[in-house]
Amino acid sequence: MIQITLPDGSVRSFEKDVTPYEVAVDISEGFARNVISAKFNDTTVETTTPLTTDGNLTLYTFRDDDGKKAFWHSSAHVLAQALEELYPNVKLWVGPAVENGFYYDVDLGEGSISEKDFKTIENKMIEIARGKHDFKMRDVSKAEALSYYKGKNDYKVDLIENLEDGTISFCDHSSFTDLCRGGHIPNTGIIKAVKILSVAGAYYKGDEKNKQLTRVYGISFPKQKELTEYLHLLEEAKKRDHRKLGKELELFTFSQKVGQGLPLWLPKGAALRERLENFLKAAQKKAGYEMVVTPHIGQKELYVTSGHYAKYGEDSFQPITTPSEGEEFLLKPMNCPHHCEIYNAKPFSYKELPKRYAEFGTVYRYEQSGELHGLTRVRGFTQDDAHIFCTPDQLDKEFKDVIDLVLYVFGSLGFENFTAQVSLRDPENPEKYIGSDENWQKAEEAILNAAKDKGLNYVVETGEAAFYGPKLDFMVKDALGRQWQLGTIQVDYNLPERFDLSYKGSDNEMHRPVMIHRAPFGSMERFIAILLEHTGGNFPLWLMPEQVIILSISEKYEKYAEKVLISLENDEIRALTDNRNETVGKKIREAEMQKFPYMIIVGEQEEKDNTITVRQHGGEDLGTISVEDFKEIVKDRISKSLKTFK
Amino acid sequence: MIQITLPDGSVRSFEKDVTPYEVAVDISEGFARNVISAKFNDTTVETTTPLTTDGNLTLYTFRDDDGKKAFWHSSAHVLAQALEELYPNVKLWVGPAVENGFYYDVDLGEGSISEKDFKTIENKMIEIARGKHDFKMRDVSKAEALSYYKGKNDYKVDLIENLEDGTISFCDHSSFTDLCRGGHIPNTGIIKAVKILSVAGAYYKGDEKNKQLTRVYGISFPKQKELTEYLHLLEEAKKRDHRKLGKELELFTFSQKVGQGLPLWLPKGAALRERLENFLKAAQKKAGYEMVVTPHIGQKELYVTSGHYAKYGEDSFQPITTPSEGEEFLLKPMNCPHHCEIYNAKPFSYKELPKRYAEFGTVYRYEQSGELHGLTRVRGFTQDDAHIFCTPDQLDKEFKDVIDLVLYVFGSLGFENFTAQVSLRDPENPEKYIGSDENWQKAEEAILNAAKDKGLNYVVETGEAAFYGPKLDFMVKDALGRQWQLGTIQVDYNLPERFDLSYKGSDNEMHRPVMIHRAPFGSMERFIAILLEHTGGNFPLWLMPEQVIILSISEKYEKYAEKVLISLENDEIRALTDNRNETVGKKIREAEMQKFPYMIIVGEQEEKDNTITVRQHGGEDLGTISVEDFKEIVKDRISKSLKTFK
Repeated sequence: MIQITLPDGSVRSFEKDVTPYEVAVDISEGFARNVISAKFNDTTVETTTPLTTDGNLTLYTFRDDDGKKAFWHSSAHVLAQALEELYPNVKLWVGPAVENGFYYDVDLGEGSISEKDFKTIENKMIEIARGKHDFKMRDVSKAEALSYYKGKNDYKVDLIENLEDGTISFCDHSSFTDLCRGGHIPNTGIIKAVKILSVAGAYYKGDEKNKQLTRVYGISFPKQKELTEYLHLLEEAKKRDHRKLGKELELFTFSQKVGQGLPLWLPKGAALRERLENFLKAAQKKAGYEMVVTPHIGQKELYVTSGHYAKYGEDSFQPITTPSEGEEFLLKPMNCPHHCEIYNAKPFSYKELPKRYAEFGTVYRYEQSGELHGLTRVRGFTQDDAHIFCTPDQLDKEFKDVIDLVLYVFGSLGFENFTAQVSLRDPENPEKYIGSDENWQKAEEAILNAAKDKGLNYVVETGEAAFYGPKLDFMVKDALGRQWQLGTIQVDYNLPERFDLSYKGSDNEMHRPVMIHRAPFGSMERFIAILLEHTGGNFPLWLMPEQVIILSISEKYEKYAEKVLISLENDEIRALTDNRNETVGKKIREAEMQKFPYMIIVGEQEEKDNTITVRQHGGEDLGTISVEDFKEIVKDRISKSLKTFK
Repeated sequence: MIQITLPDGSVRSFEKDVTPYEVAVDISEGFARNVISAKFNDTTVETTTPLTTDGNLTLYTFRDDDGKKAFWHSSAHVLAQALEELYPNVKLWVGPAVENGFYYDVDLGEGSISEKDFKTIENKMIEIARGKHDFKMRDVSKAEALSYYKGKNDYKVDLIENLEDGTISFCDHSSFTDLCRGGHIPNTGIIKAVKILSVAGAYYKGDEKNKQLTRVYGISFPKQKELTEYLHLLEEAKKRDHRKLGKELELFTFSQKVGQGLPLWLPKGAALRERLENFLKAAQKKAGYEMVVTPHIGQKELYVTSGHYAKYGEDSFQPITTPSEGEEFLLKPMNCPHHCEIYNAKPFSYKELPKRYAEFGTVYRYEQSGELHGLTRVRGFTQDDAHIFCTPDQLDKEFKDVIDLVLYVFGSLGFENFTAQVSLRDPENPEKYIGSDENWQKAEEAILNAAKDKGLNYVVETGEAAFYGPKLDFMVKDALGRQWQLGTIQVDYNLPERFDLSYKGSDNEMHRPVMIHRAPFGSMERFIAILLEHTGGNFPLWLMPEQVIILSISEKYEKYAEKVLISLENDEIRALTDNRNETVGKKIREAEMQKFPYMIIVGEQEEKDNTITVRQHGGEDLGTISVEDFKEIVKDRISKSLKTFK
């Protein structure tokens, strides 16, 4: 008998050589039907691998990342078999699972694969899958493996020859055999839906001096419905790509002359940014923050003091020198050193703390051009930064207050779905961290208390704290189910030391304040990118650059349109008119594209009755109503999305 | 007979050898009494110099800069004579007039001069002045001049030996003789008031390897009252020094670690800046400007294209390189290239123009450390920048609108006293300028029209235009009578060429837009410095960081104080409470120092009657009134200073 420990800590006894699948059946038959792969003592195993010792077993379904990996890895085998059957001269190289699906790199020998061939490949794969062939692993000797491929496939031969000596294994299913390390689903029959996504060139071993192979990308699912949903998501993500929307909505642009990774904010984008900034500023003011303004450069020495030079110096924008005075400046990669110097500008007593200095501070960090991506990976970005300087006893309240602020921000911007991660120090290695034991304990308790008190859905990661202090990070899920890290709150014991910050305590002695770094948005650029992809450009009404467009049926009603406009503007509803000499149909189509939340149509009847006809973005008709009623509808919707802070 | 032309163009005939003084008498005896110096055909002459040819004559009184120069130059002679009489071993070097007064560099031989000696020197000077000694010029030969000083004064000998050959002249008055080029008042008797201001060390010939001489600074006036006024102004200027006030009011600070010339804005200063920015933003919004946001760096190529690299490159902050990609960036010295790239982001038709892009854009320009001065000479500053892109026909209206905006800004900030300067091209040298003749004509007419139309008090300076376009600059006089250049509007034909900007005209052809640069404040840093010195920190009420401080007589009335506070805040009056356990006398003194416009005192009687006792900054008592009445007073005062724009 062997003892199998499950992830929930429960232990079950089985006879030796029990398989993961049999363990699953022992748990529940229904569960077992969905189990597709397993891990035993940190090693990936097949669901059919006999277990011979005591150990920890994890069983995976397609819901788990490891389950998906096995599913897609197995699908790559099926893809390879399909390609062998369809392209007789094909030579396989390698085919791994990736984040979304799998690929296989092959040498076609002759011909090529294009989009019109995708359907044929998919059909062939489904045909193979339906055979319900078991995936079976077997160990082979190096000689056996070489002799199998010799003369048939030089790529595999090369692969085998370069393998570190040890076990070499093959995987068989149906009539197909591949060199493989294992980690499969039980049989091909589980693969119910397949989509070939794209085809691309890929150099053998990634070296452009080598031959270019064909890389075929695909994805597969246990249910047809899941594939349909995924393709829809893909389509939606493409439509919501912030780079595409940013262009369409005229929010930002890039100029080769100004430089890559340096966004230029067009009027509508700048207005959006400003609205977001004002929204946060208003909440921060209520929460007792004070705005400061600091330069975008600082002497190299400043960053040597802060330690940022050691971190960013070599690999970042190089120092700026002055013509004759031998000074060296750096573009600031962080605002914190500047805020420390502001704290140091005058002495504080404990009665005056906490000081909360906030700044929309633009920082510059070098990224390689190949890594730049729209607004999510840039070389200059504006942090909604703030630093709180407080006594250790104030940490508790400050942390709670910052969480309140972050939750207010997420709530007002429609991010309903988020989790938090608390990163604590590794208690086994206290020497890795700066700051006293007592203070760390206080800080960690403060964070955990705050997270609990505020009812956050959080996980604790021990040993994940930075060397300078524990932290709390927020992860939000966007409308397409993708996770983004947004919002961070970090305790820092390091910079107060490095900048020799102090305050006079009630004991009349000098003490070190604690510092909290926090940024609910993170960066304006990245946040707006995520918000664009989350909302598809249909921002919460309070944030929309223009909330209403007034479309006159013809130039004759221009005056009435302007009258409606003024009435809306008097109530601070952002509107504009479209009095062009175009058909109303065209105007509506364009307004839909531009994502105006409301379209007001005015013509003869409306002018006569002093009414307006209102249409919502997406097509819903609100009918013909009075301007006053319309204003109430708008105000109501705004007050529902933008709650009052405190 | 000779013909003398006066500055008003009138011509008078005189007998040869007429003196400027006699011409003045011919104009008016009263005027002649005040004439103290003159210029004939661009040469400074004495009022007693006989005129021998036809020519242009300008007569100066103490009101004129040239008059002051002669007055103070002559005073330096009197100072030198006084020093000779008081310090027998003294050796004179040189003693010119300066912007405010004069100095003389002397080698005392033995002893020193300190503040306690100033009165003695002043008395001696006044004693000499009262002798009404005429200043008399005479030409001498080099040999004569040398023999006069040889053995007595090596400094003057050296001076004479190094003079370019030509006329050498002496000036005599009373028993005193000095080597001199002329330009004196008629006699010492005009000097009625004298003040020795300071004494400092000055190296002979400005070379620190040479002997250190004693520099005695003084100032003098034709009337005692003028001296008294000047000394008061000096005292006032010292009190209002923006560096001093900036520290006292906790507006900004500098950090040696961050770097010299790079201000850090403290909370109160940042709030002040933001209020000014919001004030301008609101007006700009009404005037049809759109805000944009651009990065603080740009590729070197961008500034090569704009021409700024040629202008700022070598002597400025040096390029920033990237670790591996060989790129070169510059800190942006100007926002215009970035705005040109924003204009270039999409095609425009003439119907869409003007585009008015505004940005509070922080720029960086290297200044030598010795030239840095508080906020008026810094290395990084934020321009209230905007660029208008329009058709040549729109220039007229745009210029008028910009003037409206500038006048609104000046009016709301208490700068009542200003003049304008229109700089036009030199019509003799059209090749010096870029842009077509027709466009220049249009632009110059537009500026002149606008200046006339808006009733500006302006002067026209022909030939003072930049090579890229004509401009209009505003000069304001502050409360101490000092002139500052504030606000500029410039037409630019150059950047549209360099950036190949275009729009589609009504003729369906592509055309070049005209660009207007404008900045009513100029820079936030410099403007706030000037505003601080102009107002002494007593900003217009609408701009004050905190408008009201509520002082409770004792901690017992803290609750009532907080109640008053909330009532004020509900009406958006910025207030705070001082509930410290201090005497009301101390609280009032500190509140006066901090320049709070209103102090509210609350104690037993006020709480009982639900009233407040109000005191204005400067001491005026508004008595005991209701909170509602007080709010009306505040709102009324605000609406009087901050007018509505448009």
